[in-house]
Amino acid sequence: MKKMFCIGYKCTLCGKEFPYNGKMLTCPECGEKGILDIQFDYQGIKSALTREKLAANKNFSMFRYAPLLPLRNTDFGRYLRVGYTPLYKANLIHSELGLDSVYIKDDGHNPTGSLKDRASAVAVAHAIENDYTTIACSSTGNAASSCAGNAARMGIKSVIFVPQRAPEGKLAQLLVYGAKVVSVAGDYRATFELSRDAIAKYGWYNRNAGINPVMTEGKKTVALEIAEQLDWNVTDWVAVSVGDGCTVGGIYNGFRDLKEIGLIDRVPKILGVQSLGCCPFVTAATGDGKLVPAEENTLADSIAVGIPRNPVKALRAIRESHGAWIAVSDNDILEGMKLLGRTEGVFSEPAAASVTAGVKQAVQDGIIKKSESVTIISTGSGLKDVKNALKAVTRPVPCEPTIEALEASGIL
Amino acid sequence: MKKMFCIGYKCTLCGKEFPYNGKMLTCPECGEKGILDIQFDYQGIKSALTREKLAANKNFSMFRYAPLLPLRNTDFGRYLRVGYTPLYKANLIHSELGLDSVYIKDDGHNPTGSLKDRASAVAVAHAIENDYTTIACSSTGNAASSCAGNAARMGIKSVIFVPQRAPEGKLAQLLVYGAKVVSVAGDYRATFELSRDAIAKYGWYNRNAGINPVMTEGKKTVALEIAEQLDWNVTDWVAVSVGDGCTVGGIYNGFRDLKEIGLIDRVPKILGVQSLGCCPFVTAATGDGKLVPAEENTLADSIAVGIPRNPVKALRAIRESHGAWIAVSDNDILEGMKLLGRTEGVFSEPAAASVTAGVKQAVQDGIIKKSESVTIISTGSGLKDVKNALKAVTRPVPCEPTIEALEASGIL
Repeated sequence: MKKMFCIGYKCTLCGKEFPYNGKMLTCPECGEKGILDIQFDYQGIKSALTREKLAANKNFSMFRYAPLLPLRNTDFGRYLRVGYTPLYKANLIHSELGLDSVYIKDDGHNPTGSLKDRASAVAVAHAIENDYTTIACSSTGNAASSCAGNAARMGIKSVIFVPQRAPEGKLAQLLVYGAKVVSVAGDYRATFELSRDAIAKYGWYNRNAGINPVMTEGKKTVALEIAEQLDWNVTDWVAVSVGDGCTVGGIYNGFRDLKEIGLIDRVPKILGVQSLGCCPFVTAATGDGKLVPAEENTLADSIAVGIPRNPVKALRAIRESHGAWIAVSDNDILEGMKLLGRTEGVFSEPAAASVTAGVKQAVQDGIIKKSESVTIISTGSGLKDVKNALKAVTRPVPCEPTIEALEASGIL
Repeated sequence: MKKMFCIGYKCTLCGKEFPYNGKMLTCPECGEKGILDIQFDYQGIKSALTREKLAANKNFSMFRYAPLLPLRNTDFGRYLRVGYTPLYKANLIHSELGLDSVYIKDDGHNPTGSLKDRASAVAVAHAIENDYTTIACSSTGNAASSCAGNAARMGIKSVIFVPQRAPEGKLAQLLVYGAKVVSVAGDYRATFELSRDAIAKYGWYNRNAGINPVMTEGKKTVALEIAEQLDWNVTDWVAVSVGDGCTVGGIYNGFRDLKEIGLIDRVPKILGVQSLGCCPFVTAATGDGKLVPAEENTLADSIAVGIPRNPVKALRAIRESHGAWIAVSDNDILEGMKLLGRTEGVFSEPAAASVTAGVKQAVQDGIIKKSESVTIISTGSGLKDVKNALKAVTRPVPCEPTIEALEASGIL
């Protein structure tokens, strides 16, 4: 058992603080919208997580940052290897984006194919520490598959609630991992509400990221990794796509934690990227700051969230980091997917590809300057959504099997 | 420039030896079927690749084994991070397989989603060292996407020849990576022949694994990693699926190399797994040893190879390692996929899942004994072929959004 450095919770809405007990979800006073922040003993972490200790740490997974996680466990050898994904210095894309220096964090490299593995791995570990045997969430996408995969590896049951309209392809991965999949005859809201009621009734572990503050802490490990992989000299900007707001909130938390314990000297500016077809945060930021429900009209399904469940953490991330919000069209997203694939060999799903498009737009708009360095986070593998990738490309015209036909085809 | 430890080529058919020049493909005397082995100066490698040097090596990719690769380059920082994939000690599956000890090597964790990245990364590096600007192959699957992705990252053009019938989903990844895709109006043989003629005419680098001996050497790095991750105490068995025969041939080469330089004391027995719907090697091994063209009637498309191009290396791998051949049905493959997913959280494509099924069968047949340890290699991510994964699972029946309906549904 390691020393635990979590000391409390603070409600992101009313600001009230509560002592840490490892079990609170939302604020007892504000209800479901009162999402909590976990508070840490940074003085204690300062000596537990030094550059030297990290350099000597042979755990090449997100669990190398255990002192900054709400976990008591110290042995993570039995878990899937989540995190420690590659950070590539761009070979080519920076010049096409009009920038001097770009890095790409390929989080599609995670065991189930997305950054969500970071939240699910911590959730499973936290569930096990607290003697749960079942973990549940409502999701059609990466959160669900990561929950099912990480739970399977650790012998924990998973129950996943999906709306009936969820595409079959998204279900295959869940079902192969052995999850109990509840296909709800209703929309996403009905699905979420049934999951909430069932979780309450059966006492399962709640992996809904817009409820459980532990999830954000798992996601923040991508920021910790980026900083360590850059030898603690973080880029001027870090760009990521935003749906519910939990991931961008986690990224800010990660950099803030590192600044608090003195491992980095500043928090990078965070560029929050949404799709024009569903961009409640961008609308709020360019308007009166109030979040209004938006339509969900984009092919980037992982960020198609009209009513984000974690608005406070998301808005804070951009505001406190002195970052910016930007929205891009579905066409820009498909172009961004091809640009990143063609120049760097990284295949992103549409939500992840929106970041490349967003950085391009931000450079054109003068938000990011040529001399500023940028880290692009690709949150999910393109293999997660081959159907939409097909929309980005042109199927080749068949060619007769002769050199003459090949030369005449214009393909080369 | 590092010292190069390649000293020659040896034809796997006629046995004739040739000095190493970095450029030979097949045997000049035997023609296209005369696939070559690369020969190494093991004495030199013994001092270049010690346990101590590896323990201190901070390159966490397949290139940490550079002295055993046919490359002069020493700086691999600009490449995709291929290799260093997780080796999991089984938490649960060993007991379901009736074994005491099982490990799972998840090579679906590679940048483009399969073990083939190992061959393509070496191919791209070898191409660059030899001043090629274009790399080409004929394939519909993992070889193609890995070639395209690794080439894109290094700014090398890729030309991929695919038969016209190739499913669109398989093309999306190639096209996103910016490959020139030649869709050939003809079968696989016509596609291969056009690629061969075009490669000869335009002087491109040849990434066809059944021709270029460098590919096998890239693939062998999975064996080197397994051994290092097991702290040089290799399991009794290593199980892998077999199509063309290049991968299993590489795995044998890797273990043989390690034995030659004294890093391990024995080569594990290799279990070669095929699908009953296409198992020319199994038929040959249980018959008179002669390879006869087989039908290609299996959903495991990555190993659906009726006329394997690398039979000598494949047959040698099993024979010299004192291993065994086994074939499993498509239904067994789908069951194997679910078994590995449910017990260990690893999602394999059908060809990779055949290995789990093959090990299960081999235990039942008494080929593998309960007390023998086994490493299962999962060669590709399940996300590569979601369509077939759907055949393994049962789509849940929709449930009304009430607790009562959920309880009555029998899902939980």
